[in-house]
Amino acid sequence: MPANGGALSSTAPEAPLPDKEVDLGTWYDEVLKRAELIDVRYGVKGFVVYRPNAMRIVKRIYEMFEGELESGGHLPMLLPLVIPMANFRRETEHVKGFEDQVFYITEAGEKPLDEKLVVRPTSETAIYPMLSLWIHSYSDLPLRLYQSVAVYRHETKATRPLLRGREFLWIETHDAFADEVGAKSQIMDDLQVAKKVYDELGLAFLVVEREPYDKFPGAESSYAYDALLPNGNVLQIATTHYLGDHFTKAFDVTFVDRDGNRRNPRSTCFGIGISRTLAALIMTHGDKYGLVLPFGLSVHDVVIVPIPHKGIVEDVMAKARQLEDKLRAAGFNVYLDDSEDTPGDKFYHWDMLGVPARIEIGRREVEGKFVTLYRRDERTREKVKDEDLQDRLHALSKEILNNIRDRAWERLRNSISDAASRDDIERLAGEGRIIRANFCGRDECAQEIKEKTGYEVRGRRVDVEEKPDGNCAWCGRPASRVVYMAKAY
Amino acid sequence: MPANGGALSSTAPEAPLPDKEVDLGTWYDEVLKRAELIDVRYGVKGFVVYRPNAMRIVKRIYEMFEGELESGGHLPMLLPLVIPMANFRRETEHVKGFEDQVFYITEAGEKPLDEKLVVRPTSETAIYPMLSLWIHSYSDLPLRLYQSVAVYRHETKATRPLLRGREFLWIETHDAFADEVGAKSQIMDDLQVAKKVYDELGLAFLVVEREPYDKFPGAESSYAYDALLPNGNVLQIATTHYLGDHFTKAFDVTFVDRDGNRRNPRSTCFGIGISRTLAALIMTHGDKYGLVLPFGLSVHDVVIVPIPHKGIVEDVMAKARQLEDKLRAAGFNVYLDDSEDTPGDKFYHWDMLGVPARIEIGRREVEGKFVTLYRRDERTREKVKDEDLQDRLHALSKEILNNIRDRAWERLRNSISDAASRDDIERLAGEGRIIRANFCGRDECAQEIKEKTGYEVRGRRVDVEEKPDGNCAWCGRPASRVVYMAKAY
Repeated sequence: MPANGGALSSTAPEAPLPDKEVDLGTWYDEVLKRAELIDVRYGVKGFVVYRPNAMRIVKRIYEMFEGELESGGHLPMLLPLVIPMANFRRETEHVKGFEDQVFYITEAGEKPLDEKLVVRPTSETAIYPMLSLWIHSYSDLPLRLYQSVAVYRHETKATRPLLRGREFLWIETHDAFADEVGAKSQIMDDLQVAKKVYDELGLAFLVVEREPYDKFPGAESSYAYDALLPNGNVLQIATTHYLGDHFTKAFDVTFVDRDGNRRNPRSTCFGIGISRTLAALIMTHGDKYGLVLPFGLSVHDVVIVPIPHKGIVEDVMAKARQLEDKLRAAGFNVYLDDSEDTPGDKFYHWDMLGVPARIEIGRREVEGKFVTLYRRDERTREKVKDEDLQDRLHALSKEILNNIRDRAWERLRNSISDAASRDDIERLAGEGRIIRANFCGRDECAQEIKEKTGYEVRGRRVDVEEKPDGNCAWCGRPASRVVYMAKAY
Repeated sequence: MPANGGALSSTAPEAPLPDKEVDLGTWYDEVLKRAELIDVRYGVKGFVVYRPNAMRIVKRIYEMFEGELESGGHLPMLLPLVIPMANFRRETEHVKGFEDQVFYITEAGEKPLDEKLVVRPTSETAIYPMLSLWIHSYSDLPLRLYQSVAVYRHETKATRPLLRGREFLWIETHDAFADEVGAKSQIMDDLQVAKKVYDELGLAFLVVEREPYDKFPGAESSYAYDALLPNGNVLQIATTHYLGDHFTKAFDVTFVDRDGNRRNPRSTCFGIGISRTLAALIMTHGDKYGLVLPFGLSVHDVVIVPIPHKGIVEDVMAKARQLEDKLRAAGFNVYLDDSEDTPGDKFYHWDMLGVPARIEIGRREVEGKFVTLYRRDERTREKVKDEDLQDRLHALSKEILNNIRDRAWERLRNSISDAASRDDIERLAGEGRIIRANFCGRDECAQEIKEKTGYEVRGRRVDVEEKPDGNCAWCGRPASRVVYMAKAY
């Protein structure tokens, strides 16, 4: 624990934040600043500083995903930041998808390099030459690897902290399989990994298969997690891709199968946006008073705030210290805020940081052998008998997660409307709704919808089977699928 | 767990490695390759791939250091990879120390950038502009921050995996204090953090204060951990620096003290070489059969190898499975190797990966209700009754760590010889010894020693007080200190 327990250094309470549903941009900028999450004043466009309050959450999100990936047989590795030009150019479709966006290292020590180096925008072209050295036989497969790194893309769109940066944090997996069945089953496993962690973070999401014209460069099919932002837009937070043999062919990765034939493995990759997951976590649960977080994500799970009154200061402090010891011994991440700030200042600070549970102890609590327990998600207080506190905190931990997750899902479900016609689509797009509609599957329709409404066809759901029961809502041709349309961040 | 339990993909036992004291270079290259730690075939000089067997250890070393740093009040943060040129140039001495070595990003999407960007060689010039925004008052101090990142230096010397690369992994702290006393006390805390983790890794080290002409660019004083390599060279694995107010002045970092005066904080930084710590771990403990690791570092702590004989196969496997379940339930990182490889192949593999304990189960073990327990550090076997196994493993875990640490310290102590004269220094340098000698402290002497013997004056010990009892062993002038001289990697 730091000396100041993660308290904000500037302690004066300020006015509440604006309503995030009304002015998401200001709300977001203010919460990043006031909760000391991200500093945008670094001075290089698209690059931000992760302050401790953000980095602690980032580390926890990494741990959660890495734990799940490793349980599923993924092994950690680390590839260099730089990719030689010759390798970068070996998969044509892929390089076309990225070449406008890559940063190049061209000099060192004021002298030009012999060969300029690509700063990784993603690592397919770094890993596949290695896979060709590592994979020889069917017994080397499946091979499941991941790395937790930052990647670099020279975004020309407006950048926004965590949402769209020129440097962002992610996990990328690179997996190879003897056949398509193994690879496609991995795609489903990847989706489960994401679901498990997003459930623990209380996030709601649409899991969709992207339309063919909207895939990762070099992929045969792409599946994505889209989270809902408070302004009605959706944000892609994770994607997994079936790459077929595009990359294994381009990079000469082969294995000898059980029958002695040399073949190209099928491969997949899974990109988990850690920066974006943090953004979704902040925006989904936060309110006018700052962050709202489940247990395990905030700087502390429980903060004790003594409210000393004349004549009973020592008893209040004694009870606070005793509780702190007891809860710490019971495994809670607890902090006794005995700083000289006023209780009001403390409430403001710990609310802003999203500490899920707060225990207030004053005269009544000492005399009555109870505590006042405040829950951040609902901003409500309850009395809890001293002897029941631990059980109540354990229960509250689950209640808060369930509550914020239920709220997130309810908002998502309530944001979806069915469209049966072009008029419906245009009207619902105007209202900022997520649209569900029968769809023909043609690129032309998707393009037209984008031009006319700004909406993107995000794809068909993977987690629920939905069959079209009419014609394409846009063009009236026969529909082959039910898709979701939304404005993407 | 991966499907293959971290086994090597190529299973044929090979000849033992050369003796590391005789041919360290070949031993090291072979162990990196055979234990599948590092792949040097990436194709960009100075950049290597960390394979899962290395990355697991790297992650564990990071965890150990981060845990210690956080207990001491350090908070995690993350600064961008890139540093604007203008900031990089603000501390003159510092920039001079690095400018020959920095990589520059100059292009993106095939177009030149408006301002070229420095790829971080270390992050002082990234963090200090932020500190000037974050620090205002004495109540903001002390501030202790760290980040776990890769840094980039265009080394012109020969590169070697983990030892000297153009990309290497480290932790850097950046701390600020109201006064020199606070900062200097942090230096001692940093040394304790390193000691605690290196003790857990079983490493031996000299802790020295570097001589004035051998400091980090921009530092007032520098303290380093030097580990001993099997060829008699020393390797700097961590350094902590007192920066005085050089950086806080150059970057206008100020605070208002309790008396209302505006002052520059004193600052420190601590660089922990994670890649180099891994190299020291490999080289210090390894032997002709591969890695030797304490519990908690290898892919598994305990591997069970069944040795089935005709007629008793089922009993052997039943006992092996039962033990696996029992040990896992007791919290051991255990793996039952029931692959189709021969026991000999399995022994070779798990030896190579440094698995500290191996349990062998055959006919005798089933019938006699005991197991054969093999310890990797000594390559010896003992019989352990089934009911004593858990206790024995707990004890063995401590024994192995103590044993490999004692061996490391013994080698280090035995490598040091006292020199009383120039002849002594030249002779002992010829023998590859670490030299302890009275020293005048003059740069000229150190330069001459380097030229004549290839040895560097590494500094005076910090952990032990040593007073000179004669004149400088090199020049005969009055000695002001006792120093250690060695050939540095």
